[in-house]
Amino acid sequence: MAVYTDVSAEDLAGFLADYDVGDLLSYKGIAEGVENSNFLMHTSKGAFFLTLYEKRVALGDLPFFLGLMGYLKDHGLTCPQPVKAKSGEALGTLAGRPAAIIDFLEGVWPRRPNVTHCAGVGQALAKLHLAGHGFAMTRRNALSVDGWRPLFDAASSRADELQPGLRDFLSAELAHLERHWPSGLPEGVIHADLFPDNLLFLGDKVSGVIDFYFACTDILAYDVAICLNAWCFEPDHAFNATKARAFLNAYTRERKLSEAEQAALPLLARGAALRFLLTRLVDWLNVPRGAMVKPKDPLEYVRKLRFQQGVKGLGDYGVEHASFAG
Amino acid sequence: MAVYTDVSAEDLAGFLADYDVGDLLSYKGIAEGVENSNFLMHTSKGAFFLTLYEKRVALGDLPFFLGLMGYLKDHGLTCPQPVKAKSGEALGTLAGRPAAIIDFLEGVWPRRPNVTHCAGVGQALAKLHLAGHGFAMTRRNALSVDGWRPLFDAASSRADELQPGLRDFLSAELAHLERHWPSGLPEGVIHADLFPDNLLFLGDKVSGVIDFYFACTDILAYDVAICLNAWCFEPDHAFNATKARAFLNAYTRERKLSEAEQAALPLLARGAALRFLLTRLVDWLNVPRGAMVKPKDPLEYVRKLRFQQGVKGLGDYGVEHASFAG
Repeated sequence: MAVYTDVSAEDLAGFLADYDVGDLLSYKGIAEGVENSNFLMHTSKGAFFLTLYEKRVALGDLPFFLGLMGYLKDHGLTCPQPVKAKSGEALGTLAGRPAAIIDFLEGVWPRRPNVTHCAGVGQALAKLHLAGHGFAMTRRNALSVDGWRPLFDAASSRADELQPGLRDFLSAELAHLERHWPSGLPEGVIHADLFPDNLLFLGDKVSGVIDFYFACTDILAYDVAICLNAWCFEPDHAFNATKARAFLNAYTRERKLSEAEQAALPLLARGAALRFLLTRLVDWLNVPRGAMVKPKDPLEYVRKLRFQQGVKGLGDYGVEHASFAG
Repeated sequence: MAVYTDVSAEDLAGFLADYDVGDLLSYKGIAEGVENSNFLMHTSKGAFFLTLYEKRVALGDLPFFLGLMGYLKDHGLTCPQPVKAKSGEALGTLAGRPAAIIDFLEGVWPRRPNVTHCAGVGQALAKLHLAGHGFAMTRRNALSVDGWRPLFDAASSRADELQPGLRDFLSAELAHLERHWPSGLPEGVIHADLFPDNLLFLGDKVSGVIDFYFACTDILAYDVAICLNAWCFEPDHAFNATKARAFLNAYTRERKLSEAEQAALPLLARGAALRFLLTRLVDWLNVPRGAMVKPKDPLEYVRKLRFQQGVKGLGDYGVEHASFAG
């Protein structure tokens, strides 16, 4: 939750004069997003997001993120689209920060995802992967296998504060993944953070994929693995094969997974679990004393990683290999 | 800025079934309000505020606040109105908290109030005082003269950390105000916190008075004094007589100030300055280390209090006594 930068009505009115979005009616800082300052803005033409990019976002990445949203929307994905200024630029400057106006999509994200939601994310993720095909820009995934050792080094000395033996557990897993991480799998645009709070629904229907600020170019099936971990476990961290089956079946109805992708999925899911485990661990160990933001629990991902370590094949995800390969 | 309680879409949909506000389209936690959890909600019938009352708000006060908003709106003030459930009740329960749905008013609050804004607040405040006439409920002002000594006692031992001599300064001022606080002045419903962030404008016109959670029954001219301090000083804390004149003239066009009220205004303004000085001081001394919320500067109100101590009469506010009495 965050509004790091306040914006005066006077400055905002000046900024909006460069756009064709109607007259300003109201804007409210939103308690969402940990990287940027976000406002929900009403104008005489409707509702928009106003985002000010704070210093944790690399300026050089903004054209990728904004360009990608526009490209995905143009290629059939239901996602917000940046509103271009009269100059044709999607990125402007407000209150001394890079700033953009983005379509506001109606919808609510599921706090308790059910099987229908899991099918929804499967379909949406596959559509995203297909829609991203041909997008000309690329962005390296700083949080894939190459990025994990620096995180481990930053956190390992204090890992056992969370759970005795966690340091050795992470060390062994990291070494295993570095040795066995797959290559040659289909790559493309991935969302890389499609957790339930980034998928909006109206009723049972997906109304929008949002928050593309981790999007990058990487193994498509790694995105599938991230979602398996994010959507298909219960609040007590037990794996739910019914949800996984709904998710994977919905995905593969839109985009087939190759034999190689299917074979790699359990290892990719271990990597996806380690990635969120490590970033949560670093955040956990670096929360200022007395801060109002409660960091997410790294141990949730220890449980998920242990589960994925035991997966022998897609059957453990509730999917029959043969029919699934279609 | 605050969202203390998250609400699931499922729980919210259940809550909304008791109201006639249309179908839920979206809801976003708002980074506003330090006492409650606030959401801006879109439904098929429009935009609403959803407020969950957290434990710092006394439950027993909620009927006063909600009843007052409805009464003021019915009596011509432009302010949000609670939406009643089908049962007729304005107060419900959501996520284990008392909760209410309130009209969302379009408008923006002025970060840099100008003379026109000051006239706007003068007119709006007088209209509020007139509209509140006849409201049957009362609420004691816990932050008037009787409430200051406990605040002083809580903070005085560390006051000199902020400014050498502050403790003695506060002690003398408090004693003076306790001895000379006026009685017999016209009383009624006051807003008690009508700072710029609680008054919305569309262009130059007031579009709404908001945030009635400090409203109470007290001396009407004390509300005038609070606004004098809140609106009529520059960012460098210098008094701006042009703004004060615009404010006071706009107020008195709607509601005359009696001779006694005029005579008491400088003393009431000292009290109003001390009230915000003391609450800010307590907050300042009690901020948790590392908290993300920056408390407001108590020293701003030391400057304002010193100014008010030097005021001899309304002439110092830029207003001619005779013509002003009208």
